[in-house]
Amino acid sequence: MSIRVGIVGISGFGGGEALRLIANHPSFELVYAAGEGSAGTPLINRYPGVPHKLAGLVIEKWDPESLPDLDVLFASLPTGTSAEALARVPDSVKIIDIGGDHRHVDGWTYGLADVWPEQIKGATRVANPGCFPVATLNTLAPLLTAKLIEPGNIVIDAKTGISGAGRGGGNSKFGYAETNENLQPYGLLRHVHMPEMEKTIEKMSGGSAAGLVFTPHLVPMTRGLLVTIYCRGRTTTEQCLDAARSCYADRPFVRVTDQPPQTKWVSGSNLSLVSYAADPERELVIAMGVVDNLGKGAAGHAVQNANLICGLSETTGLEGAPVWP
Amino acid sequence: MSIRVGIVGISGFGGGEALRLIANHPSFELVYAAGEGSAGTPLINRYPGVPHKLAGLVIEKWDPESLPDLDVLFASLPTGTSAEALARVPDSVKIIDIGGDHRHVDGWTYGLADVWPEQIKGATRVANPGCFPVATLNTLAPLLTAKLIEPGNIVIDAKTGISGAGRGGGNSKFGYAETNENLQPYGLLRHVHMPEMEKTIEKMSGGSAAGLVFTPHLVPMTRGLLVTIYCRGRTTTEQCLDAARSCYADRPFVRVTDQPPQTKWVSGSNLSLVSYAADPERELVIAMGVVDNLGKGAAGHAVQNANLICGLSETTGLEGAPVWP
Amino acid sequence: MSIRVGIVGISGFGGGEALRLIANHPSFELVYAAGEGSAGTPLINRYPGVPHKLAGLVIEKWDPESLPDLDVLFASLPTGTSAEALARVPDSVKIIDIGGDHRHVDGWTYGLADVWPEQIKGATRVANPGCFPVATLNTLAPLLTAKLIEPGNIVIDAKTGISGAGRGGGNSKFGYAETNENLQPYGLLRHVHMPEMEKTIEKMSGGSAAGLVFTPHLVPMTRGLLVTIYCRGRTTTEQCLDAARSCYADRPFVRVTDQPPQTKWVSGSNLSLVSYAADPERELVIAMGVVDNLGKGAAGHAVQNANLICGLSETTGLEGAPVWP
Amino acid sequence: MSIRVGIVGISGFGGGEALRLIANHPSFELVYAAGEGSAGTPLINRYPGVPHKLAGLVIEKWDPESLPDLDVLFASLPTGTSAEALARVPDSVKIIDIGGDHRHVDGWTYGLADVWPEQIKGATRVANPGCFPVATLNTLAPLLTAKLIEPGNIVIDAKTGISGAGRGGGNSKFGYAETNENLQPYGLLRHVHMPEMEKTIEKMSGGSAAGLVFTPHLVPMTRGLLVTIYCRGRTTTEQCLDAARSCYADRPFVRVTDQPPQTKWVSGSNLSLVSYAADPERELVIAMGVVDNLGKGAAGHAVQNANLICGLSETTGLEGAPVWP
Repeated sequence: MSIRVGIVGISGFGGGEALRLIANHPSFELVYAAGEGSAGTPLINRYPGVPHKLAGLVIEKWDPESLPDLDVLFASLPTGTSAEALARVPDSVKIIDIGGDHRHVDGWTYGLADVWPEQIKGATRVANPGCFPVATLNTLAPLLTAKLIEPGNIVIDAKTGISGAGRGGGNSKFGYAETNENLQPYGLLRHVHMPEMEKTIEKMSGGSAAGLVFTPHLVPMTRGLLVTIYCRGRTTTEQCLDAARSCYADRPFVRVTDQPPQTKWVSGSNLSLVSYAADPERELVIAMGVVDNLGKGAAGHAVQNANLICGLSETTGLEGAPVWP
Repeated sequence: MSIRVGIVGISGFGGGEALRLIANHPSFELVYAAGEGSAGTPLINRYPGVPHKLAGLVIEKWDPESLPDLDVLFASLPTGTSAEALARVPDSVKIIDIGGDHRHVDGWTYGLADVWPEQIKGATRVANPGCFPVATLNTLAPLLTAKLIEPGNIVIDAKTGISGAGRGGGNSKFGYAETNENLQPYGLLRHVHMPEMEKTIEKMSGGSAAGLVFTPHLVPMTRGLLVTIYCRGRTTTEQCLDAARSCYADRPFVRVTDQPPQTKWVSGSNLSLVSYAADPERELVIAMGVVDNLGKGAAGHAVQNANLICGLSETTGLEGAPVWP
Repeated sequence: MSIRVGIVGISGFGGGEALRLIANHPSFELVYAAGEGSAGTPLINRYPGVPHKLAGLVIEKWDPESLPDLDVLFASLPTGTSAEALARVPDSVKIIDIGGDHRHVDGWTYGLADVWPEQIKGATRVANPGCFPVATLNTLAPLLTAKLIEPGNIVIDAKTGISGAGRGGGNSKFGYAETNENLQPYGLLRHVHMPEMEKTIEKMSGGSAAGLVFTPHLVPMTRGLLVTIYCRGRTTTEQCLDAARSCYADRPFVRVTDQPPQTKWVSGSNLSLVSYAADPERELVIAMGVVDNLGKGAAGHAVQNANLICGLSETTGLEGAPVWP
Repeated sequence: MSIRVGIVGISGFGGGEALRLIANHPSFELVYAAGEGSAGTPLINRYPGVPHKLAGLVIEKWDPESLPDLDVLFASLPTGTSAEALARVPDSVKIIDIGGDHRHVDGWTYGLADVWPEQIKGATRVANPGCFPVATLNTLAPLLTAKLIEPGNIVIDAKTGISGAGRGGGNSKFGYAETNENLQPYGLLRHVHMPEMEKTIEKMSGGSAAGLVFTPHLVPMTRGLLVTIYCRGRTTTEQCLDAARSCYADRPFVRVTDQPPQTKWVSGSNLSLVSYAADPERELVIAMGVVDNLGKGAAGHAVQNANLICGLSETTGLEGAPVWP
């Protein structure tokens, strides 16, 4: 029996990737798609490659109080706009909030699925982690859990493809000509993802205070996110790799590699690749992780969370291998 | 019961895309992967995102005489190298040749699956069409069949992403720095795909002689192929669109659009989009088609052909929506 | 003695390239820069790499009636907005209109500098050709003048980098994520550059009627423009090349090559490369031309025209070799 | 009177950029170009946009013992190949070694021109700094000199465009399809540029031991290099900016900005942009610098060094503003 799902924010990049994954999901049936700018448009006009079975769907105006009969709603709304609206969704509808408003908020489960799947299984309101946090936290979890690094001294140099900045309607800040062949840091010393990462790292460290430096960069590519993380700890490359192999031994989406990870290795997939290089004499650990910012960093993770709360196998609809090249 | 398949040419772009599609195919089981340069390498080292079930596979040295028990072999070998080798494959193994050596060759069925699926069903040796031909032929088939254009006067201006040029081992001709931000025509007045297109167009036209001009261009993008075709014929845009809608009414992968098609609309999929703009007073028809050169232009088409010869539903394993953005 | 110049439209791509060229021009002194969105901003904030001598300049609000003492004004305004405003510029100020409003308009000289430099020398109002027209016309001029092709049957398949579409303020149509790895035709059967090309081709042909098909495409690169032109005529490749060599023997910026031209060969320069491939038996000529759409296609050409009307050597400030890679 | 210069390594990216700059240099006359692969080829065949005055030059086979009469030789040879060959160049020929073999080598002056111009003026053998070092050292020099940061605890996260990896003849490691839409760290914990940076930082710090972590990344763009450097020190953003403004007050090519710097702001130029963000409470300084890896990171810097040793104004031939967009 199929599970009836809806997407709000269908025209954005996160919503579009959710559509792609749900369209190919054997247990989910997309019955509702809503978006601000494109309400009234047949879904196939917006997404000319949408499967035939969804070709008749028309994008609706988003109204949390007149939803059709839904089991799960995927919400991909701009940060700051989802809290009020999602509060008006009936309790009977489970929600995965891909947006940023409900992370570490009471009443919502933080959906870091690769690390804490058990906590998510019974939830009905799940806050999907941000794209930078999920790459960072999946990479650091084994080291923090095994106490191989100090949580108080972590430098995260993060690089994302431009879809991570959202569709940017209404300005030319992310226009092709301006961002192509360009590389830039932004959000120095203050970024909206900082508190989310700090709180989670403290939880992973058993309460020790986290001390983070976080610098995101915009890279001229559409998809892909890499974190290069500089930590303090007297350990070896092998110990780090082993901690990660042990931590993720039974987890389907996180892979440990002894090569420097490349974003293209996970493009279009829900995979998370982690790797480490350590110098015990200098008490230095370089932890690296890559995800597709729209996959594991957004919609893929959301479907994984939806699988968990619906009692499905976690990998349902997410087995697709990365697109290469 | 699963169908046992193999891939030779696993390290190339066509072989890699075949791997991705076969790995996610519900009826195919990959039991053999061969490649020249990478023989002896575990598949997961070459493709770090390969599904767990294939992680144990090791790339073998290609030897047509010592194949394992196989139902279907996908061959993605450089043009000029497959004829001799594939002749030594046992008759019991069905072959889809993604390479160019067997197109319009006796004993091989030309696998233009969207147009002539019935001819393929009973075949055991299928020559997959080239990437430029499939985009061109899918676009022109409705017009030629309905005699809306003259086969003797067709100008094909074709543009492909750089993966269409192959992996190009051993030279820097397709190096990033040289080809990025660069656009170039090549193969003027002579291209290896010309005879394949001419023969097929003559067949579609009931034997009338084809007169083609074909100019390929290399575009700085990884995937995607667009043909812009200039034809003579006194017809209207609507007549062309209707001819295509009628021709492809029951075909799952070809879509007719009244918008200028974009390559990104089909990226990562087996879709073929066709569109038309005609000016009856000037007796001019502009026919346009887009495919993913590695999907419908190579591996996707090959899986479609394999589905046909194995008696499966044509769309098995190929329902994935395009990756956007 | 330096010539005092101004730029209006400084924030756009054409204005920015004019700034770059004028900043390095030995006889021009930039004394005025105006732009809508950025009025009041120091030029160096908008262009952090501007030469020190211009660092003090502040972008002004555009007002044709309160200009400083100027010898030449470069106008790079959106099509449709310059006619009325430029009419109010004092007669004493020479104008090069990079925008599209004055091409083939009474009182304005059409500034196709590589072909008709003599006509420009005494002008005070010059309409710079469009980017597609200049590439097309420079390529066809030798063939039309030598009557090697028929003006009534010309198919122009044109491809431009995305800066050719302008900065596109206010919409995400040319956003990075949407246009990267994407290729698309647009403006089918009707494009604003058509009449400009038709009129000029008729002039080049001694009055014979021009018959054009023109299809522009958007290519995922910042700069660069290629036209692939299909013509009718019984001639040979060598005859075409010779006609071009003869036509451009004394012209500094047009180069004839017997290789398929690549856009990167002219990037950042004022060069125009032309090449030809002909098949006399089929009476077919393929004429190809590349320019940098912001260089020869806009600001470079404008500086060349300004040199001509100011009595300078045509190449002043334009000798810079292309940027490669 | 013109200075007679030669380039060896003309076919590589560094050599090509040297050619572009020298071709436009008012005091340098290129009289010799040598390259391994392209010996015997007219320069214009290799670089179709080369200025007319150089069109007759033919690329020669590199032989240090049969050079023409030269004042300056620019050497852009692969690391490891220049030491032996350049030792055989006559003493009368001044050498700028763009390659890596002579940095911090006896008898060679380390040409960090923006920081130590006086030391270079009398030299006849100059080792051009590496691309990563120059970006790093220009950025850190003001902080180290003013003792605002500790030299013993510096984390350099560096990102370069793919031309930084060289032309890579003979392998497909930097092929377009593999590197486009891909981002990757490399050379973890060991990179050839480390000792060069350590030695220079120690010199800048008055002998204090340097402690560096250096992680380079390959970014999918042709040109551009950004370093994001994490340092320890109790200072403020303004103090860092002031130190840099003071340090570079009279230097023509280094600019201090209070915005996060973007690589595109310096593309095609010899500029170096530096910026800083500090948090005194956390004793954290983020120092950022961008250069064009082929400009300031290679050929532009080399021309600057050549100007210095030839007694020319340092900016001769290098005033060109960056190419944008």
